Amino acid sequence: MSGADAGPKAALSEVEKLSIDTIRTLAIDAVQKANSGHAGAPMALAPVAYTLWNRYLRYDPARPHWPNRDRFVLSAGHASMLLYALLHLAGVAREDGGNEPAVSLDDIKQFRQLDSRTPGHPEYHFTTGVETTTGPLGQGVANSVGMAMGGRFLGERLNKPELPLFDYNVYAICSDGDLMEGVSGEAASIAGHLRLSNLCWIYDNNTITIEGHTELAFGEEVATRFLAYGWQVLRVADANDVHAIASALETFLQSSDRPTIIIVNSIIGYGAPKKQNTAKAHSDALGEDEVKGAKRAYGWPEDAQFLVPDGVVQNFRDGIGARGAALFSQWEGFLKAAKEADAEHAEDVTAFLEGRLPEGWDRDIPVFPADAKGLATRESSGKVLNAIAPHVPFMLGGSADLAPSNKTKLEFEGAGTLAPFEPGGRNIHFGVREHAMGSIVNGLGLVGLRAYGATFLVFADYMRPPIRLASLMELPIFHVFTHDSIGVGEDGPTHQPVEQLLSLRAIPGLVTLRPADANEVAEAYRLIFSLKNQPAVLALSRQPLPTLDRAQYASAAGVAKGAYVLADSEGSPDVILIGSGSEVQLCVSAYETLKAEGVKARVVSMPSWDLFERQDQAYRESVLPPDVLARVAVEQGSVIGWDRYAGSSGAIIGMHTFGSSAPLKDLLKKFGFTPDKVLEAARDQARRHRR
Amino acid sequence: MSGADAGPKAALSEVEKLSIDTIRTLAIDAVQKANSGHAGAPMALAPVAYTLWNRYLRYDPARPHWPNRDRFVLSAGHASMLLYALLHLAGVAREDGGNEPAVSLDDIKQFRQLDSRTPGHPEYHFTTGVETTTGPLGQGVANSVGMAMGGRFLGERLNKPELPLFDYNVYAICSDGDLMEGVSGEAASIAGHLRLSNLCWIYDNNTITIEGHTELAFGEEVATRFLAYGWQVLRVADANDVHAIASALETFLQSSDRPTIIIVNSIIGYGAPKKQNTAKAHSDALGEDEVKGAKRAYGWPEDAQFLVPDGVVQNFRDGIGARGAALFSQWEGFLKAAKEADAEHAEDVTAFLEGRLPEGWDRDIPVFPADAKGLATRESSGKVLNAIAPHVPFMLGGSADLAPSNKTKLEFEGAGTLAPFEPGGRNIHFGVREHAMGSIVNGLGLVGLRAYGATFLVFADYMRPPIRLASLMELPIFHVFTHDSIGVGEDGPTHQPVEQLLSLRAIPGLVTLRPADANEVAEAYRLIFSLKNQPAVLALSRQPLPTLDRAQYASAAGVAKGAYVLADSEGSPDVILIGSGSEVQLCVSAYETLKAEGVKARVVSMPSWDLFERQDQAYRESVLPPDVLARVAVEQGSVIGWDRYAGSSGAIIGMHTFGSSAPLKDLLKKFGFTPDKVLEAARDQARRHRR
Repeated sequence: MSGADAGPKAALSEVEKLSIDTIRTLAIDAVQKANSGHAGAPMALAPVAYTLWNRYLRYDPARPHWPNRDRFVLSAGHASMLLYALLHLAGVAREDGGNEPAVSLDDIKQFRQLDSRTPGHPEYHFTTGVETTTGPLGQGVANSVGMAMGGRFLGERLNKPELPLFDYNVYAICSDGDLMEGVSGEAASIAGHLRLSNLCWIYDNNTITIEGHTELAFGEEVATRFLAYGWQVLRVADANDVHAIASALETFLQSSDRPTIIIVNSIIGYGAPKKQNTAKAHSDALGEDEVKGAKRAYGWPEDAQFLVPDGVVQNFRDGIGARGAALFSQWEGFLKAAKEADAEHAEDVTAFLEGRLPEGWDRDIPVFPADAKGLATRESSGKVLNAIAPHVPFMLGGSADLAPSNKTKLEFEGAGTLAPFEPGGRNIHFGVREHAMGSIVNGLGLVGLRAYGATFLVFADYMRPPIRLASLMELPIFHVFTHDSIGVGEDGPTHQPVEQLLSLRAIPGLVTLRPADANEVAEAYRLIFSLKNQPAVLALSRQPLPTLDRAQYASAAGVAKGAYVLADSEGSPDVILIGSGSEVQLCVSAYETLKAEGVKARVVSMPSWDLFERQDQAYRESVLPPDVLARVAVEQGSVIGWDRYAGSSGAIIGMHTFGSSAPLKDLLKKFGFTPDKVLEAARDQARRHRR
Repeated sequence: MSGADAGPKAALSEVEKLSIDTIRTLAIDAVQKANSGHAGAPMALAPVAYTLWNRYLRYDPARPHWPNRDRFVLSAGHASMLLYALLHLAGVAREDGGNEPAVSLDDIKQFRQLDSRTPGHPEYHFTTGVETTTGPLGQGVANSVGMAMGGRFLGERLNKPELPLFDYNVYAICSDGDLMEGVSGEAASIAGHLRLSNLCWIYDNNTITIEGHTELAFGEEVATRFLAYGWQVLRVADANDVHAIASALETFLQSSDRPTIIIVNSIIGYGAPKKQNTAKAHSDALGEDEVKGAKRAYGWPEDAQFLVPDGVVQNFRDGIGARGAALFSQWEGFLKAAKEADAEHAEDVTAFLEGRLPEGWDRDIPVFPADAKGLATRESSGKVLNAIAPHVPFMLGGSADLAPSNKTKLEFEGAGTLAPFEPGGRNIHFGVREHAMGSIVNGLGLVGLRAYGATFLVFADYMRPPIRLASLMELPIFHVFTHDSIGVGEDGPTHQPVEQLLSLRAIPGLVTLRPADANEVAEAYRLIFSLKNQPAVLALSRQPLPTLDRAQYASAAGVAKGAYVLADSEGSPDVILIGSGSEVQLCVSAYETLKAEGVKARVVSMPSWDLFERQDQAYRESVLPPDVLARVAVEQGSVIGWDRYAGSSGAIIGMHTFGSSAPLKDLLKKFGFTPDKVLEAARDQARRHRR
């Protein structure tokens, strides 16, 4: 597993020193010009990042999307200029085989300016070469665990003897803050458990945080903690000691049974005469004096700005560039040979590389027959998931220790469990670690896998940061959140979501679906798998819900539009009943009674606000005609936001408080989710708005 | 620091064995009757909990609110029957000195039923003797760290020589799940750092999770991890070995320089013939056969239900009851002597014990003069906080490593820093651990302190579970969330909140405030400190906001009502401009232009939806008259929910996407938050709705 072409013994040449100091001064100058940003970490870590990139990283700057490239994650995202400098100097192209640079010198001069390729924190999808969006601490390292799991999974599934299509390594640079965040601990525990020896974290142990020295709040022994997680722990006493850095990387490359953390002692703001090694070097422009002082310390021309000395770019071409090109070329050969050797395998590989769903992926999705007793949407979800998964080999996921409740286990033959020495399993046991689950699912998504997580809806609160980032990164991952209301019953208010659904709806770009019955679940999955650049979440019931007779009511295909007329009357309705999930049955029940009474009612099933908002005005008004003001909205969640659909004078039946511990039937009565309550509200609305 | 009156050598007597099995069988019978719940952990842990409670816990069942009681936290909240059985058998009273039991045998028979005192998971404020609401894993142990910090803080502040008013210990029982959650790691790191030797976690190492054996996902060395955090690690090889449990507790009581974790190997569902030691013993009723089998194994009458044998209650009276009464009586003496010794001190002690704010606590809250340039609301927050804190000695808090940005540092003389050997400091360095901060703040609140946390608003996402629990527990803690919009500027979308404010507003009971200027900040703090049973959060700007001239516009006292008319015209307005926080100035600017043009405009400053919703209809309609449909709502956050105030035909200027990295002035233009845009919308509204 060695990717090195220069052993650790290689001394630092003049051009290497120049290259390192170019990274430093580009960071200094960019932050100074923007008058904001973080130069301190790039100044400290330039030798580490340089050594990794130019001596070890298996990465072809001309092919930044090469699927078997080593991944470099800057978990300490505030140090973004470190990454931008590397992308620029290594000549990373904006697209595979293209000439346009991902980050030009002009881009660096536009650091942190509107629409520049060099935003304050690295943004995936926006700047080529950025492997994941970082900034919220702990996320990058946790993503890296998913990337490493994904690499192993792909290797197990797609490699052929002597033809390693996937054997990349994953490197992540992290800060004190990353390691203080609980999510990194969760992720490290999983990585150690799974013995991910293709994973290397480089810990920037600079002992400085925003509030001051780490001893203010961080007294633990990081090395011992990682030994406890089952990691190999290496130390580099001085971030400027390139030889020691190289040695540590070599040791990582030679290890085969556990992940590695390299603890690198560094000096934040290295070179800045007064600010180095203080919290003042963490952020903000250094100021003219410190800038000049640092440049003097590096032996750099004091007044030069954005200087890239002769030889530096060539040095990267000779290093990462030459190595990457050779590796890519070799890999192309592997790919060709692998395809030739096995036609069926070729289709699998091609489908994955093209990022497409295999033909007929949805052919086994069941149509659920009408059934008054019905089944919980978590149950139908499990059936649909297991109908799709056999046809989508690059899909994997699991639950945060609630698979039996979430019904997310893939149970068909060969699904397998992802375990320490079984990296190809498609069922992941995340343990009781929702936050890391979210971040790892993102990491899996970042390497092109169709990944999912699962827990109770109320515990989506534990994993909001990665859900938000999935949306910001436009990753088509998904999460299965069951037990989506007071329908949880006896477990009580700690386990009954109220505000979670709304909170998820509020995340820009996230598709949030709360299907009403088994056939809406099936349509929801069709929709989710059609998404290319949006994550999705499902809110599913614990309790059985009737499967609606779709001969009598409208087709569930309307799910794709977010809301649709499920049941209607002739002409303009006297009242519209709007519901989602388990409350649609209440609307249908009220509708039937009203119909018998001669009241013209309409039922709108509204599984997704965001999908509905994306429809054109004509469709939206066809579902909710503006002149029909008599409306009742029913949902076992926060009432906030429903005014938009119920209108200023409509009725909203929802939750205004937390839930309670009791059998469900008692809770429905206590909180007013009964057919009678809905009927009463509907009659009242029809009366008030009689035309 | 010894609280034991029975050494570890004491053998298990017959009545002790009976007592332990009573706990087990009450749990079994309650779960069986409810047909839901978790008996497995109580069956396993009964000997541990019995030993702790009846031999060691410094707790007076007749005085469950005694401020210096040892705290017992059941972090594994699903094992609630363990706690309810203990509360019942120990005879814990519902109120101090009262006769009514906190949990009667009838309550146990009503386990998990509507409005019973024995909900599925233990709920603080609802069942006396429950020290914190648990169920969401990791929260209880993290709360316990706050309780231990609080105990040390109170001891340092209020104890007199030889008069220990506060020297309680904190015990928490936790599960595998608690230790897998990142928040417990964060909290344990802080506890180790602060050397909280009054803290003891008892880890139920039963090796079973819901998905199966812990080896599926939990391969780490827990003992080593805790050594890394700086804890004392003890082991008990068999949960039934009362002697070993007692020894470990003695060792904890004798340690003085670090927290302790006791790793207890247990058998989940101990005694159930077929289900013990399997995931099937985790939850749900055991079934008749297993119930009988377990009872046989304990030597219990097979058919007896809810049996409390003779002698068991007396045994608890002789143990925890007698010890607790003596300790309480001794403490009353300490209190009397301490008050007599020092009158000023007496007032401090009394104020704390009565849970009231000292007289004149708000006397130094500044009135900020009108100032067009103004200051950021985070800045005015810092000033107000520092004006209040000197007069409220039982207030403490800090930031998750962002104090210089959040402006939350208490800077007056004597404020001090809470540090390893300085437990009385009022500035806490939480490190980059938002989640644990939230849970620790809850723990501090649970022991009666006025505690606060702080971070950027976007990172409120990292700590939603404890914010939710603060609201469910009705704890008057608060959090200072700064950098509350795209006003963050160059740090970009990872640091710019969009959906966070709405997500917080959706938490039932939480008071959410986004003040518009320095004087609204002052009023917001007045309101927050007046709260007795609600948590609050502040959303504050990074950027300067003009301080409005309150001679020209209405008084900021309207903040307490959630929304108020800030600027108005004669008669019914042609258009209403509604804003919060940094957008109120846009409304005021548009108002002034409209006024000059002869358009009758009104500005409503709306810092808090939830406070506004709590006002009566007359007030709400006086602010937002139903017949004035021309409305513009402006807020740099998600548009969801604003329909309620803007109305179906009003305009909403808000965020529909994530933000972007750029200087603020560019972002305001890009996202449409300019006086011109607001003016344009106002004119359009006035025109459309001309009457």
